[in-house]
Order: sequence, then C-alpha cells, then structure tokens
Amino acid sequence: MNNLLSQVNFIKEIDKLKYIQRKTKLFNSDRCENDAEHSWHLAMMTIVLAEHANKPINVLKVLKMVLIHDIVEIDAGDTFLYDTTKSHTNTEQEFLAAQRIFGLLPAEQAEEFIAIWLEFEDGITEEAKFARSMDRFEPLLQNTSNDGGTWKEYNVKYQQVYDKKVVIKNGSESIWKFAENLLEESVEKGILEK
Amino acid sequence: MNNLLSQVNFIKEIDKLKYIQRKTKLFNSDRCENDAEHSWHLAMMTIVLAEHANKPINVLKVLKMVLIHDIVEIDAGDTFLYDTTKSHTNTEQEFLAAQRIFGLLPAEQAEEFIAIWLEFEDGITEEAKFARSMDRFEPLLQNTSNDGGTWKEYNVKYQQVYDKKVVIKNGSESIWKFAENLLEESVEKGILEK
Ligand SMILES: [Ca+2]
Repeated sequence: MNNLLSQVNFIKEIDKLKYIQRKTKLFNSDRCENDAEHSWHLAMMTIVLAEHANKPINVLKVLKMVLIHDIVEIDAGDTFLYDTTKSHTNTEQEFLAAQRIFGLLPAEQAEEFIAIWLEFEDGITEEAKFARSMDRFEPLLQNTSNDGGTWKEYNVKYQQVYDKKVVIKNGSESIWKFAENLLEESVEKGILEK
Repeated sequence: MNNLLSQVNFIKEIDKLKYIQRKTKLFNSDRCENDAEHSWHLAMMTIVLAEHANKPINVLKVLKMVLIHDIVEIDAGDTFLYDTTKSHTNTEQEFLAAQRIFGLLPAEQAEEFIAIWLEFEDGITEEAKFARSMDRFEPLLQNTSNDGGTWKEYNVKYQQVYDKKVVIKNGSESIWKFAENLLEESVEKGILEK
C-alpha cells in the first residue's frame, strides 16, 4: 500500500508533461504538439514499425523508453532539435529532473526508470537506437505534411535536417530509406531548401 | 516497403486522436484532456502499477490495449462514462471505425489490432481486466484532484460513481481498495455527494 501511494503521486506529477509544448505542430495543423501526445505517438509507431528494426528488439523495453523519454522536460523544458545555442546531451538539469521525478517512485522502480532513461539517452543498445529513430522520424513526418513546418519556420536547410535525421539508420535501414526519400521529395516540392 | 507505406498512412491518420476531447480535465486544471494524452497516461500507469494486478499479466499486451483502446473514437467520438442516453457497449459505429482505421495497416497487423481492441472491449482476459481498471482509475484520480471535476459538473452521485468504478477490482484488488478510500474521502470533503 505504501508503494501504491508513491506510485499515485508519480502518476499525478507526470500529468505536467501535457503542458510541455514542442516546436513541431500536429499533422496538417497550426497547433503545437505537447510531450504527452508526442510520447503516445512514438509508442504507437514502435508497435506498428518494430518489424523494421535492424536487429531483434525487446518491444516492451522500447515502449518504456519512448513513454518516459521526455518526462525530465517537466523540469528541464523542451530543447528544439536545431537549436545550436543549447546543449543536446544529457544536461545536469535533466539529470536532476530525473532524480526528482522518478525519485517519487518506490526506490527499485525509480532506479529502473532512471536506468531506462539513461539507456535511451546513451543510444547504444538496439532498443535505444530504435527508440531514438522513432523520436527523429515523427517530426519528419509532421514537417512533410505541414508544408515544411519547423524547417521553413526556423529556416533550417536540407543538410542540417539530413545530419540530424541520418541516425534513423541506426535503428532501421528501411525506415531511413523511406525518410531519405521524403527529404528528397520535400526539396522537389520546395518545402525544404538544399 | 509496401508495408511501410501503409504503416505510415496509419501513423498519420491516428494523429487525429489528439483532437478528440474527453469530458475529464487535466489534474488541477480547467483544460479538457484529449484521447492521446489520456492513452499515454494509461500506458504510464500500466508500467508503474503492473505489480498490483490480481493475476500475472502480459504487460506488453496491456500496453497495446491502452495505447489503441480509444482510436475508434476518431470516427465514433468519446462517450461520457455517466451518459445514460448512449450505448456504452461496442457499437456498430465503433466497429466500422475499427475496420476503417486499423484497416489502413497491412492485413495481418490490422487483424492483430482489431483483435486486441475487441479483447479490451470484452474485458474477459486478465490483460483486458487490468487495462480497463487503468481506464477507470485515471479519471477518478483527476476528479479527486480537481475538486470533484466531472462529478460535480454533471451532478453525478456517489453510488453512480461506485457502480462504474467497482470494476477496478477485477484488475486489481489493492488498487480498488485505494480507489474506494479516495471515494470515501471525497464524500467527507464534500466533493462527491452520497
Ligand atoms: Ca473513452
């Protein structure tokens, strides 16, 4: 029963993820996506696209990663992928956030969640590679169906996008091939500048 | 590659879940929750609370259930739990929605998703019982932290709430005990009328 009380406190606290706004917009829309919606979408993409992973993956582990990967942003805020003024690696602020928020859980579970989050951040295991490829693929789909979306809005060029997106390949060669085609098409359509 | 194209079309289509508004509000807030946020929260609750299930459950299966359980509402809309004028069972409209939306996926995957959705709706397996208990527990937590929330707003009384929530017990006796206490406390606080 003690476990349950800590767990419910955690469940209430993470409601705040619904207030964290991303730069990218919903498909065919002007409204920004929030981190909870984004995390749900990555989880759906994981169960739908798992068969395309380069190597066999533990789907449950990947789901845990994508569901919790942004929770630290409740304290640390969202960092825009193309923002060159901010660090994109594992900041001190994010680590403190992980300790505070996952620390609401019973000790053993807190440790498990922090470990899963760090595994995602490190991007070394097959599960982390696939989870990270989902995280890069969703906004690419959003921008291509939003007439260029944040690429146009923030004047991001083809090569910058390519350099950020090519890591999709580490999770799935076939999804990367699909993504690369979408980037080429975007250049042809004039919604992404070379 | 053909699979991938159908899968991406499905991934784009389900973005619409982010537009489906529920009656319940975010914790400590006036803003309605949408179905994508709700589904993410149920998935988080599942990984956090799985240890309290009455019987051993396949967590991956439960996650798939809660992630997809409301997708039919893209076509069929949300039905408020205490609305007595609408059918709450598996309507024809929901079944057509399942066929149209999951039908965007490659045939084998479409069949799998429809089967999982029906399993959730039927509520017979241990996984479905636990998934359904998460679906009932989240709005209970929201209403207790929202000064009565939809209970007050729609003048719903203790016994009506009790009758809808007691199914939590089928998924987890200990979560139900916790929930029952919250209902009693809500009566004492005057945010739920007996
Ligand atoms: Ca519903």
